[in-house]
Amino acid sequence: MALSAFDHPILSGLFGDPELAGFLSKDADIAAMVAFEAELAEAQADCGIVAPEAAARIARLAETFVPDIEGLRQGLGRDGVVAPELVRQMRGVLEGEAARVLHLGATSQDVIDTSLVIRLKSICAILDSRIAGIAGRLDGLSERFGDRRVMARTRMQDALPIAVADRIADWRLPLARHQDRLKQLLPRLLVVQYGGAVGNQEKLGAEGPRVTKVLAEKLGLGFSEKSWHNQRDAVVELADWLSLVCGSLGKIGQDIALMAQNSIGEITLAGGGGSSAMPHKSNPVAAEVLVSLARYTAGSSGTMAQSMVHENERSGAAWTLEWLVLPQMILATGSALLLADRLLGSVESMGEAS
Amino acid sequence: MALSAFDHPILSGLFGDPELAGFLSKDADIAAMVAFEAELAEAQADCGIVAPEAAARIARLAETFVPDIEGLRQGLGRDGVVAPELVRQMRGVLEGEAARVLHLGATSQDVIDTSLVIRLKSICAILDSRIAGIAGRLDGLSERFGDRRVMARTRMQDALPIAVADRIADWRLPLARHQDRLKQLLPRLLVVQYGGAVGNQEKLGAEGPRVTKVLAEKLGLGFSEKSWHNQRDAVVELADWLSLVCGSLGKIGQDIALMAQNSIGEITLAGGGGSSAMPHKSNPVAAEVLVSLARYTAGSSGTMAQSMVHENERSGAAWTLEWLVLPQMILATGSALLLADRLLGSVESMGEAS
Amino acid sequence: MALSAFDHPILSGLFGDPELAGFLSKDADIAAMVAFEAELAEAQADCGIVAPEAAARIARLAETFVPDIEGLRQGLGRDGVVAPELVRQMRGVLEGEAARVLHLGATSQDVIDTSLVIRLKSICAILDSRIAGIAGRLDGLSERFGDRRVMARTRMQDALPIAVADRIADWRLPLARHQDRLKQLLPRLLVVQYGGAVGNQEKLGAEGPRVTKVLAEKLGLGFSEKSWHNQRDAVVELADWLSLVCGSLGKIGQDIALMAQNSIGEITLAGGGGSSAMPHKSNPVAAEVLVSLARYTAGSSGTMAQSMVHENERSGAAWTLEWLVLPQMILATGSALLLADRLLGSVESMGEAS
Amino acid sequence: MALSAFDHPILSGLFGDPELAGFLSKDADIAAMVAFEAELAEAQADCGIVAPEAAARIARLAETFVPDIEGLRQGLGRDGVVAPELVRQMRGVLEGEAARVLHLGATSQDVIDTSLVIRLKSICAILDSRIAGIAGRLDGLSERFGDRRVMARTRMQDALPIAVADRIADWRLPLARHQDRLKQLLPRLLVVQYGGAVGNQEKLGAEGPRVTKVLAEKLGLGFSEKSWHNQRDAVVELADWLSLVCGSLGKIGQDIALMAQNSIGEITLAGGGGSSAMPHKSNPVAAEVLVSLARYTAGSSGTMAQSMVHENERSGAAWTLEWLVLPQMILATGSALLLADRLLGSVESMGEAS
Repeated sequence: MALSAFDHPILSGLFGDPELAGFLSKDADIAAMVAFEAELAEAQADCGIVAPEAAARIARLAETFVPDIEGLRQGLGRDGVVAPELVRQMRGVLEGEAARVLHLGATSQDVIDTSLVIRLKSICAILDSRIAGIAGRLDGLSERFGDRRVMARTRMQDALPIAVADRIADWRLPLARHQDRLKQLLPRLLVVQYGGAVGNQEKLGAEGPRVTKVLAEKLGLGFSEKSWHNQRDAVVELADWLSLVCGSLGKIGQDIALMAQNSIGEITLAGGGGSSAMPHKSNPVAAEVLVSLARYTAGSSGTMAQSMVHENERSGAAWTLEWLVLPQMILATGSALLLADRLLGSVESMGEAS
Repeated sequence: MALSAFDHPILSGLFGDPELAGFLSKDADIAAMVAFEAELAEAQADCGIVAPEAAARIARLAETFVPDIEGLRQGLGRDGVVAPELVRQMRGVLEGEAARVLHLGATSQDVIDTSLVIRLKSICAILDSRIAGIAGRLDGLSERFGDRRVMARTRMQDALPIAVADRIADWRLPLARHQDRLKQLLPRLLVVQYGGAVGNQEKLGAEGPRVTKVLAEKLGLGFSEKSWHNQRDAVVELADWLSLVCGSLGKIGQDIALMAQNSIGEITLAGGGGSSAMPHKSNPVAAEVLVSLARYTAGSSGTMAQSMVHENERSGAAWTLEWLVLPQMILATGSALLLADRLLGSVESMGEAS
Repeated sequence: MALSAFDHPILSGLFGDPELAGFLSKDADIAAMVAFEAELAEAQADCGIVAPEAAARIARLAETFVPDIEGLRQGLGRDGVVAPELVRQMRGVLEGEAARVLHLGATSQDVIDTSLVIRLKSICAILDSRIAGIAGRLDGLSERFGDRRVMARTRMQDALPIAVADRIADWRLPLARHQDRLKQLLPRLLVVQYGGAVGNQEKLGAEGPRVTKVLAEKLGLGFSEKSWHNQRDAVVELADWLSLVCGSLGKIGQDIALMAQNSIGEITLAGGGGSSAMPHKSNPVAAEVLVSLARYTAGSSGTMAQSMVHENERSGAAWTLEWLVLPQMILATGSALLLADRLLGSVESMGEAS
Repeated sequence: MALSAFDHPILSGLFGDPELAGFLSKDADIAAMVAFEAELAEAQADCGIVAPEAAARIARLAETFVPDIEGLRQGLGRDGVVAPELVRQMRGVLEGEAARVLHLGATSQDVIDTSLVIRLKSICAILDSRIAGIAGRLDGLSERFGDRRVMARTRMQDALPIAVADRIADWRLPLARHQDRLKQLLPRLLVVQYGGAVGNQEKLGAEGPRVTKVLAEKLGLGFSEKSWHNQRDAVVELADWLSLVCGSLGKIGQDIALMAQNSIGEITLAGGGGSSAMPHKSNPVAAEVLVSLARYTAGSSGTMAQSMVHENERSGAAWTLEWLVLPQMILATGSALLLADRLLGSVESMGEAS
């Protein structure tokens, strides 16, 4: 046992997802936060609120800025959020007008939440594409083995034989629905956050909506009637979706682990895991871990949902809870998709000729 | 403390939702199961698979059938599902051909899941309409008090004053999204279940899809490529949605409980709850209970999600778990909407003139 | 699907536990609350705080009091707790001094929490005795079949044969630990609640501890340094224990469902559940439902734990959450123990002669 | 948002617990696994099962062994557990008899679970000592401010004034119970794991219990009648305890966040967190994060409890789930205790002179 399995020097051999982990790294987070500040200044310049030179200066900084990580760490420890210290460090490099207009009308949550959704946009695209890959794997298996027979089992008892294609269809159909769900939830989720101190853009007056709209366009995000500081439904909806995806993969894993039982032998997998005591065994490790990840994300979605009770205009308690749960859920889902791909790719045979 | 708060002879004074409880009663369940059997026979008659007289006989029985509840109770205890005994009782009343074709090509899960979605259709319509009602309440409050001022609070500290309309907007906007979500998920959920013993309609051969389609039309439900016996994503998605709705109401409740603190006094409510020790107090009972219900459904959604790992063609373990969780979540959500309505209806004043 | 499975007219055929349900009924709750009021008056009389005649009058009422349930229901809806209306109804029957001293120095939570622990005392004794019964069943099975062989399976793969006694030992040993845990937690749990309006017995002055001690003795409960109004650790600890017990039973159920697979056939059960589509099947219904109940209580324990954040001197939000979760967990555990007993009692054979 | 908050280069400024993280690092894990192998060989030498020279050779290796981490990572990815590759690497360095007797009669789970409990012994001692520290802090605050007054609040409404000592007592009393619980659970938890491939020490015959006992003594652990491979109650009990501890700290945090509200002002804290938009604010960051951590561990305990359904002699699915949840719960609890210490240490004043 060790720190997070998803970025552990040893456990990552099984759970690692370097591609998604990259989007959740400190560097990706800082880069997105800095991009927010730069695009905000540009948007404000476009709207005539800040001088174009100042915005250009900030944009240039964004390309070269190297944060003092230890300073950010201490700032986070002090403020509970990284943004105040990050802005301070950026201001320290800038001068005059650029320093003054940096972060204009913004609050920490604007920077941090927007950084999140910027990265979620890429993350969700990857997850979607991986789901499509799994679906393709299943279609391939159905083509190869679909006409063969397996025993249907209900309540753990043999019922009647079915086609392998029938079993695979039960694995395959939910994946298409998950892709539909993602398509439906993304417009609610990928929305710029720009509300200022108390969510009403009080420093921008009538210009608020226009700046936000331009900013959203620059960042490739959506735009909402009001900042969503304390409206966390779209973030929790994403967590629910992650749990649904892992649940469907967990069902596949559970079925395969059952099919791979020696007395059942309805599936043959290449290269199962070894045992330190019984070298003859071939364990369906990936199948089992899909079940673990499904149970993990299922429970985590319930924890995440507790953050809906986000009191007042900003709740440190509820917001921080998201930070503890969501990144792990994303990595668990990424990991589950990679493992499912590996598992399905290792299928050598399914069912019996009928 | 007592048995389920939602149908408890005393606690239902606070948590009761007779309208929704009706749809979850044994009578509603049995009626929907009997309707499934009747419409199935009619659909099969329409498709030329059963004799119209037999189908008509079953349809007539459906209107008059009085089940032996104690027999159903014992059957459930024996079989883990109510359907085998229900079908047996119905067959006992029918004769000849009608008895023979009753439940043709169906399995217990077809009857039970279809009964669920038949009733969910009505339940979700009611929930949707109640959400609209809450939204209307909020619009009304915004009209009456929106221009007044309250103190925005972030991380539990006074920040800057905002308009009451700003705070209400944060309560209001998620409700519209919940209605959109419901609209998107219903076509996935309200789908007839008719797969037969092992989900592939093995008794119907090529006629399966046609019968299913006619059956779906008769029941006012959707139709899927394959029965969804062990594909539980749409049911869990509903649970997640219930939790999101309660979460948003819980946020309203938490905010109101905070606004109603004596030292803050940003809201005045008519008729708070009394105390046996301190008669002078006026407790924001409904506001607090909204928080309880949000935390309850949040956690319950995580438990419900465990049922996604539905092994093989039918898992008694996973399916039964749904029965333990979902009805309570539905009633909790119904209860939360009723309480929110009562709470918002009791608001006498919000904020201060600016 | 229907209202709570544990007291449902049909589902109770499988999940019902009339013995425990009795302790959670409104009648048992009211009886315990009325007993609290009577013993409190007697304790106060013993300590010279109230007139013995008044206490005797209250004690007589306790034996004959018939509450107006609809009135209690409305009171609960108004006050969020049943006690104010209950006390009002009792006062309505009493006169003069007895009416005046009824509920002296007590608050609603004192009555309600003490009623809970009074009933938990009986409930926990029953659960303990049922666990002992299951342990006895397992010892019996080990005596009968312990020398026979089953295949040990690790990671779902055949490993090496073991004795049936080995497998049973893994089921049996946790039960003894659960009994030890219960013995250790009960002194923390079975503690009278008597703190008055704000938990410090402000109406009793120096007499507080003495009255509480006498009251605790009369009720057969323990006594704590301070009322535990907002210290919910012992209640949540009980929930955790219930979940552990169900978890161990769920493991037994899961193992038996796996052993009962047709291709494995390591266990023979009498009288499995039937199917409406496949009359030949014999489903290990009770084994599967043990898994459902384990997953249900596991998740519920996590929801229950949210009630630890019990703000201020009394949180309606956190306290009410307990009411929604704990009774169902108790019934789930009672149900699981009954089902495990039935399941183990139905074992006709285990393993193979070696 | 980022990977695990507990070992994140920036978030660790708030959530970091280097002392506990050390025990959960790969190095500590490997060191404990290697110690298990060395002490096992020594115990077997003591019992006359292996040659003393071979055991001594293994013991010397344990002091100098440098694993190939990338090899372990790949082995974990292949086998689902680190032990087979670790043993292989160790065997590669040893020769002859020592290589042959290394890991004698052991299985991967023996090594990995024993490594866990070796480290949990230290971790729990630290947690216990930190709880004592928090209790001391509270005693100190009670001495300084106990006689002053605060307003008791029930259901979020002002009730009556109480002494600051009363409020602190509600924070303090559960901590003593948590220490009692820990004392009671540790003998169940700190038990050596040594069961061999299928848990019955099949390679050791009658010598099994004696070797295990000597091994347990050498490792400073307890000894159980049978290996606890698939009996996970003590591990889940620890998780429940962690959640209880965090729950009590979360209640303190919630109370302090409420007391620190500007309109209430019952507590003064030194050095609150800053805001990027409102430099005047002083946010009770640590108080809020205690609530986050309580909600996180509450939900996580429910997820962890799902691992009780540990099928057969070893479940990769259930066991792996523990790895995803428990380390994070330990770090969350460590973090909460550090934050509570910091928070209580920053209290400058509580209540008002009465």
